[in-house]
Amino acid sequence: MNERLLKDIEFIVELDKMKSILRQTSLIGGDRREDDAQHSWHIAIMAMVLSDYANEKIDVCKVIKMLLIHDLVELEAGDTFCYDKKGNEDKKEREELAADKVFGMLNVEKNKEMRSLWDEFEEMKTPDALFAASMDRLQPMLNNYHNNGGTWQKFDIAQSDVYKRISPVKDSSDELWKYVVYMLEDALNRGLISKP
Amino acid sequence: MNERLLKDIEFIVELDKMKSILRQTSLIGGDRREDDAQHSWHIAIMAMVLSDYANEKIDVCKVIKMLLIHDLVELEAGDTFCYDKKGNEDKKEREELAADKVFGMLNVEKNKEMRSLWDEFEEMKTPDALFAASMDRLQPMLNNYHNNGGTWQKFDIAQSDVYKRISPVKDSSDELWKYVVYMLEDALNRGLISKP
Repeated sequence: MNERLLKDIEFIVELDKMKSILRQTSLIGGDRREDDAQHSWHIAIMAMVLSDYANEKIDVCKVIKMLLIHDLVELEAGDTFCYDKKGNEDKKEREELAADKVFGMLNVEKNKEMRSLWDEFEEMKTPDALFAASMDRLQPMLNNYHNNGGTWQKFDIAQSDVYKRISPVKDSSDELWKYVVYMLEDALNRGLISKP
Repeated sequence: MNERLLKDIEFIVELDKMKSILRQTSLIGGDRREDDAQHSWHIAIMAMVLSDYANEKIDVCKVIKMLLIHDLVELEAGDTFCYDKKGNEDKKEREELAADKVFGMLNVEKNKEMRSLWDEFEEMKTPDALFAASMDRLQPMLNNYHNNGGTWQKFDIAQSDVYKRISPVKDSSDELWKYVVYMLEDALNRGLISKP
């Protein structure tokens, strides 16, 4: 049996655990929390649908790959809620170690490919990474907006903090940014977000 | 507000329902059933990991896109268990109608792009479609194999039916096929599959 393939299968079996890592965001129309696998699928397909709105030319394929793997570090480091100030203090450090371990399960070439995608995503500097970050951050907001405020309500998040979180959209798509502003103003007006 | 973008957002919100469409396959190490979003993510990332094993040169990006959207018709048609003979009699017809409706939510170009990916996937003739089908069929088998036989046990599926279901792998990857044969023989030997 091909030893490399057996390692790949082991990695694929490990991925199944992503279906049980819960995020704070809930599904629309319910209070069941979504998991990392569902979230990653949702934002990958969002990139397919929304790529035309990027200001700069982006490599959709690369963006999709980034989004598929961007949360794999949570297999080791767990999910850190984006508005959890304490949890975010050492997030970078914890996730770097997790990336060594998780991508290290793969052979040298695949490890390098995935790590490079993850590093680019985390640095959030290239148009591809900025667009990927936009998808990653827009999706939970769409869920909150269509779910009576969701985590905005549950954790009493201020609109200013939501604007800070969604700022990559401003840098990557004028069209999407217009929608974000419309959505967040409407959310405040309708009380889905309680404070400015 | 951009009317096309509003339609795209409506589509993206609709996609959230995929997280509640349950398949028969269970998560590894439990009896919680996986859903369409989790499954689609798992097989898309499998394509990234396993693409090197394809016999012919494939377009990984296209395979990933196919896999991300391949189950969207279930938003209208629901999930049909692959070993359910009755359900599979009118599956094609039901899913064609569903494809009109689901992809029809999008603008003309995106509708065309997604429908063309879905049609190619369903026809299962090109190397890309065959490899995509291989991922779609291998993943639930890996889950069964690592989950005490899973649906093979629950629905008393014969090894010959499993071989029939996984046959696209034979046409798309010699390396993966060797693994499949190893896995299915071992599954029978260990009683994870009860009958040949």
